[in-house]
Amino acid sequence: MCLARAGAGGCSWRACGRGEARTTQGEGDEAPWEDDEKFLFKPELGLEECRRLGFENAKDIIACGFDPSKTFIFRDTDYIRELYPVALEIQKRITLSQAMGAFGFQKSDNIGKFAFAAIQSSPSFAQSFPSFLKPGTRCFIPQAIDQDPYFRLCRGVADRMKWPKPALIHSKFLPALQGHQTKMSASVESTALYMTDTPKQIRKKINKYAFSGGGATLEEQQKYGANLDVDVPYQYLKIWLDDDEELEQIGKAYASGEMLTGEVKKRLGDVVAELVEKHQAARKEVDDELVHRFMDPNREELRRKWVGHTPSGAPAEEKEAQPV
Amino acid sequence: MCLARAGAGGCSWRACGRGEARTTQGEGDEAPWEDDEKFLFKPELGLEECRRLGFENAKDIIACGFDPSKTFIFRDTDYIRELYPVALEIQKRITLSQAMGAFGFQKSDNIGKFAFAAIQSSPSFAQSFPSFLKPGTRCFIPQAIDQDPYFRLCRGVADRMKWPKPALIHSKFLPALQGHQTKMSASVESTALYMTDTPKQIRKKINKYAFSGGGATLEEQQKYGANLDVDVPYQYLKIWLDDDEELEQIGKAYASGEMLTGEVKKRLGDVVAELVEKHQAARKEVDDELVHRFMDPNREELRRKWVGHTPSGAPAEEKEAQPV
Repeated sequence: MCLARAGAGGCSWRACGRGEARTTQGEGDEAPWEDDEKFLFKPELGLEECRRLGFENAKDIIACGFDPSKTFIFRDTDYIRELYPVALEIQKRITLSQAMGAFGFQKSDNIGKFAFAAIQSSPSFAQSFPSFLKPGTRCFIPQAIDQDPYFRLCRGVADRMKWPKPALIHSKFLPALQGHQTKMSASVESTALYMTDTPKQIRKKINKYAFSGGGATLEEQQKYGANLDVDVPYQYLKIWLDDDEELEQIGKAYASGEMLTGEVKKRLGDVVAELVEKHQAARKEVDDELVHRFMDPNREELRRKWVGHTPSGAPAEEKEAQPV
Repeated sequence: MCLARAGAGGCSWRACGRGEARTTQGEGDEAPWEDDEKFLFKPELGLEECRRLGFENAKDIIACGFDPSKTFIFRDTDYIRELYPVALEIQKRITLSQAMGAFGFQKSDNIGKFAFAAIQSSPSFAQSFPSFLKPGTRCFIPQAIDQDPYFRLCRGVADRMKWPKPALIHSKFLPALQGHQTKMSASVESTALYMTDTPKQIRKKINKYAFSGGGATLEEQQKYGANLDVDVPYQYLKIWLDDDEELEQIGKAYASGEMLTGEVKKRLGDVVAELVEKHQAARKEVDDELVHRFMDPNREELRRKWVGHTPSGAPAEEKEAQPV
């Protein structure tokens, strides 16, 4: 079962593409992309634009290969009727000073950001999905570390509500092309590889911008080898090269100076170009109709799986699913 | 056209009963009763209980004689899908310090109260009712003075959004039975007359508790007359006695000492007992089915009145109403 929130997050595809957001223990998991969050945190974006971006992002999620019969993707603004009662329970149990402490918000921040802390957390609880999740089902949340304050507060509330606490797993941030001390920026193209880049752009960006941990000259590289910990091409390969044996070989050869930065970059370019081409082809196959199917919470295919499910596999007598 | 929010407000019936919440200029008006507000501001109440109270309150509103073909009553939690996008626009434009200044909230207050400021204001704008209000329709809000900070902020936001600002009219608070310097309390029965009281209880409360502005003795009353400004029975008659001529006669006679407190209380008892009996009889006629009709935003009878309405009275080609 996968629950995915469709918002306007820039690089969210990685969580899906690399499998961090996959089913665990046959329960629930969620990858957060929120149209309302985007709207509240980006002064320049209108709500309709955030909703459109959310819809387009859903195509990227779907292109990663999720099974529609087990996946529900939603935009917060579409699904708010089910989220809101749960969010209210959470909001009632978080004080302003807790929220300011946890998120570092200031008095000049808009009040929507505070409210959003609870909206963000509400899909962590099965009662947000009454038409297809069994009450008490525990939620599993793969998340980037910057989302942690939300869910730590949320786990505290769960305790007081005697609801099952969501389980969290943190994904690492990928370094920007310029290295660990730098940040990817949506407005600075050279800082990141985009899923919309052409293979040529991918290769060019890697060659030109990816920070090298190798020697400054051929001689230095051959003499001292590369520092893998700060080498962006190697760090990226660790994420995207599926063949662990090859990765180990590259690591050894590169660290010892036997392999050169250019060769590692070439291999990374091949790997990412293939991945991006595959993703772009898969994404082309995703039409609006398929997105609407993923976004429909009242599908029979979802209900049968969860409401009144019996061990024999035969559906038990089902309660009427609540309209959403 | 009347929009009424069904929550758990205690004395809200007055606004309807006395007509403050009636149609104005064929536009919109709203009387706020919010299940989410009740929940966030009352530590002891659960959300389901607030929703139940909201439903029961709707019966009191309906019993005041609203026309179902022109009236939409809603609980925030039911109608949040339409309110939320508008609330987001408002939340984005109100900072924490504005909200703290306007409402006097503290850091120990729950974050829901801050968010609610925007939910509260969202029905002030026609885009919250896309299936039956013409875009740009101005809203008219009869309100108690304590609600004013919400709507003052909301008018400021409207200005920046170039949305029509809601028009406000303030209703006075009725003094508690014990007089102007005291407060009605839901937990102290002797402070207020309830619409659920029997005529006998009404008369007894008025006789026993209503603060008199008359003389302490028969002689004093005859010599000095009554101070109408602090006399609760007279203040109540000003609200509930429909016959303005009789009210003036009573005022003159009572102020001059010709009429005694007991007589004024007797008249008030008759007036209120009759009003309450009528209301209770009308309320008995309101069944759950009628409430559901008032609470259905997708009724044809509402849409025909507003969407694509033409001056000739013939319905123009209608856009599909959005599902809620």
